[in-house]
Amino acid sequence: MSLFCRNQALKNLWELHQSGLAVKEGLERQYIMDAIDAGRMVLLGNPKHPGLIPALIGQPARVKINANIGTSPWLCSLPGELAKLEAALQAGADTVMDLSIAGDLDAIRQAMLKRCSLPLGTVPLYAVAQRYISAGKDPAAFSAEELWEEIHKQAEQGVDFMTVHCGLTRKAAGWAQDEDLRVMGIVSRGGSILARWMRRHNLENPFLTGYERIIGIAREYNVTLSLGDGLRPGAGLDAGDAAQWEEVIMLGHLARKGLAAGVQCMVEGPGHVPLAEVAGQISGIKKLTSQAPLYVLGPLVTDISPGYDHIAGAIGAANAVMAGADFLCYLTPAEHLTLPCLEDVKAGIMASRIAAQAGETALKRPQALAREAAMAEARKRLDWPGMSVAALDSAMVDERRKDFSQKEACAMCGEFCAVKMALN
Amino acid sequence: MSLFCRNQALKNLWELHQSGLAVKEGLERQYIMDAIDAGRMVLLGNPKHPGLIPALIGQPARVKINANIGTSPWLCSLPGELAKLEAALQAGADTVMDLSIAGDLDAIRQAMLKRCSLPLGTVPLYAVAQRYISAGKDPAAFSAEELWEEIHKQAEQGVDFMTVHCGLTRKAAGWAQDEDLRVMGIVSRGGSILARWMRRHNLENPFLTGYERIIGIAREYNVTLSLGDGLRPGAGLDAGDAAQWEEVIMLGHLARKGLAAGVQCMVEGPGHVPLAEVAGQISGIKKLTSQAPLYVLGPLVTDISPGYDHIAGAIGAANAVMAGADFLCYLTPAEHLTLPCLEDVKAGIMASRIAAQAGETALKRPQALAREAAMAEARKRLDWPGMSVAALDSAMVDERRKDFSQKEACAMCGEFCAVKMALN
Repeated sequence: MSLFCRNQALKNLWELHQSGLAVKEGLERQYIMDAIDAGRMVLLGNPKHPGLIPALIGQPARVKINANIGTSPWLCSLPGELAKLEAALQAGADTVMDLSIAGDLDAIRQAMLKRCSLPLGTVPLYAVAQRYISAGKDPAAFSAEELWEEIHKQAEQGVDFMTVHCGLTRKAAGWAQDEDLRVMGIVSRGGSILARWMRRHNLENPFLTGYERIIGIAREYNVTLSLGDGLRPGAGLDAGDAAQWEEVIMLGHLARKGLAAGVQCMVEGPGHVPLAEVAGQISGIKKLTSQAPLYVLGPLVTDISPGYDHIAGAIGAANAVMAGADFLCYLTPAEHLTLPCLEDVKAGIMASRIAAQAGETALKRPQALAREAAMAEARKRLDWPGMSVAALDSAMVDERRKDFSQKEACAMCGEFCAVKMALN
Repeated sequence: MSLFCRNQALKNLWELHQSGLAVKEGLERQYIMDAIDAGRMVLLGNPKHPGLIPALIGQPARVKINANIGTSPWLCSLPGELAKLEAALQAGADTVMDLSIAGDLDAIRQAMLKRCSLPLGTVPLYAVAQRYISAGKDPAAFSAEELWEEIHKQAEQGVDFMTVHCGLTRKAAGWAQDEDLRVMGIVSRGGSILARWMRRHNLENPFLTGYERIIGIAREYNVTLSLGDGLRPGAGLDAGDAAQWEEVIMLGHLARKGLAAGVQCMVEGPGHVPLAEVAGQISGIKKLTSQAPLYVLGPLVTDISPGYDHIAGAIGAANAVMAGADFLCYLTPAEHLTLPCLEDVKAGIMASRIAAQAGETALKRPQALAREAAMAEARKRLDWPGMSVAALDSAMVDERRKDFSQKEACAMCGEFCAVKMALN
């Protein structure tokens, strides 16, 4: 029985949007349906999210970009985060995640859902843990029942995809915290809370033992599960260690199980990976997860670039796309230092879009090649409006050209313009 | 007979600096000498350049970064360019090229040589062509004799390395300008002027026919020849075409010929290269040029990122370093749009340094791995001063942390800090 028969919400969503999606992605409808059915693509969209434009994730659909926004304990402003949401939409994000961990989380989430026509994702565990942290209690004191309530509430509010760290086991968390095996320990917030919970309660990960509960809710609302990598290494030196792969293997089992139960799943990936290991990690993860859509954070190819991690992340991301990654979570210049500001949000999205375009061009995706060709043709004609249209950021081109917009060449070469010399 | 015996200026330079260079690069003196002698490394340094700190180029020596600065016809200010020189030194450039094409070029060059303790490079052809352009004449009206005079004068002034487009032939230039073979034609300023000169004079490239003259001057002053790629493609769509490879083959012959005559040579490379082709191009060029140090511009892995070409260039550069590139010419956010400003110079250098570090980490260079390890260790301890020291840009880390410098965690997570949760 097809996934569309097991997941009515998905079926309705597909029927409403299939023509538009096929045109936008340049793919046949049947091709997309088969890929969704096989779990190689996911269609993000919760019917409870008003005004939603759904997004298709999974190559050869266009690689999508996610922007993480949200409050933090020391920088907590709803208007500030809504401004970042607007900046993310303007800069060309395809999805947004609300990672708020301070303030009235329900109010923030609902305000974002109202203003965001793109799929919105969350990490429900944050809301549960935040109730304890903000009361000065241990963040791991929550009960599993609170998790299911939070997931259900957020699904009802209209959240389109949720990170759930289901693949983390006590065994692998132990390896990740073994100083003989790993330098940096656990750096995922969700992973760290769950490792703490497992120690405190002397029980296995509740997201893993209660996976059936999550599946039940996710299917009802077509919430796509983003199976989180709570044990992703936090340093290039730790990339590809036993804890990481143990979790990947489990994520593969869970993705197949979710799909069989009528739930769309994608898989989250690293993180910090030396450049020589990016292609191997991406193809390895895709293999172990039966080609489920892969959602990567970076990967960062060096750890010594704080203030510029969007650049180190773009290097990893371009290579990851070329190796099969489907969905890029941006990194901003604020990563590892502070909460991103408005300019950081834009910088992060632009870097990710460049990485996606570079990867897709390497893969000879027809739409990516057409964008490249449009720029080359415009440059050859010294057609500045044409270059502006072909550019990822047209406003930036116009802004930097403004003092010389009447000139045929650019201010780098002036009369020395090589193209002009060749034209005459 | 060893290169050191044929090039007295190089021998003197090496004897003066060998101990410092060996320590700085973490390589044995004999290893470096053998590599220079075989043409796999070059030691940049003209004895006429006062106060010079020479630079060794060629992996496994650390990958070096060049910053291009210099006036243009519509933005011509000596103080402005000297400020950029200062910014380049501050940001960690290893060499600087003065690409000025407007104003009093001798005065600009001499001012830069005086203030720049790093090797300074030039493109002597620009000065010759500029005399004609600024007089409203055809830039290709110069005589070959003027080239030798200019090269000699600049060597006497102390220029350490010079781009000379010796490998361009009439045949290959014809291919580059054939619209059936290439979209973008010739985009190198030097290449474009020479193609025009060859058409106008109905003669072969004077840099090629007069290569012996150049060698004579270069040997006397230990000017390293940077054999320019005047036919590098100007669009990813043109990467790896016949014109490009024809020139690379010729550059290989010329590098071997120069070395045999006692002159250090490096080779310039692309340019615009789709990500999937970067490794193949780099290894191909290194092969055809007998492993001469390879000096790459980018390569840009997408053409649609004007305003952000430092990022597209960093993606290509990191992959190029991993494949064997030795020397990175920065690209700034101004590339393809206008002359870089001060902030662009810094942004370009930082992006290149990130690319170099990513590539060297991928290659497991011990010094690069040590820098990565220092950051991971500091992060694990939440040691912010340690992270600042380990970072490529310490001032940036301090600046972004300044509102929260007394806090143990960072403002992204606050009490949600995964590392802190794991520590307690």
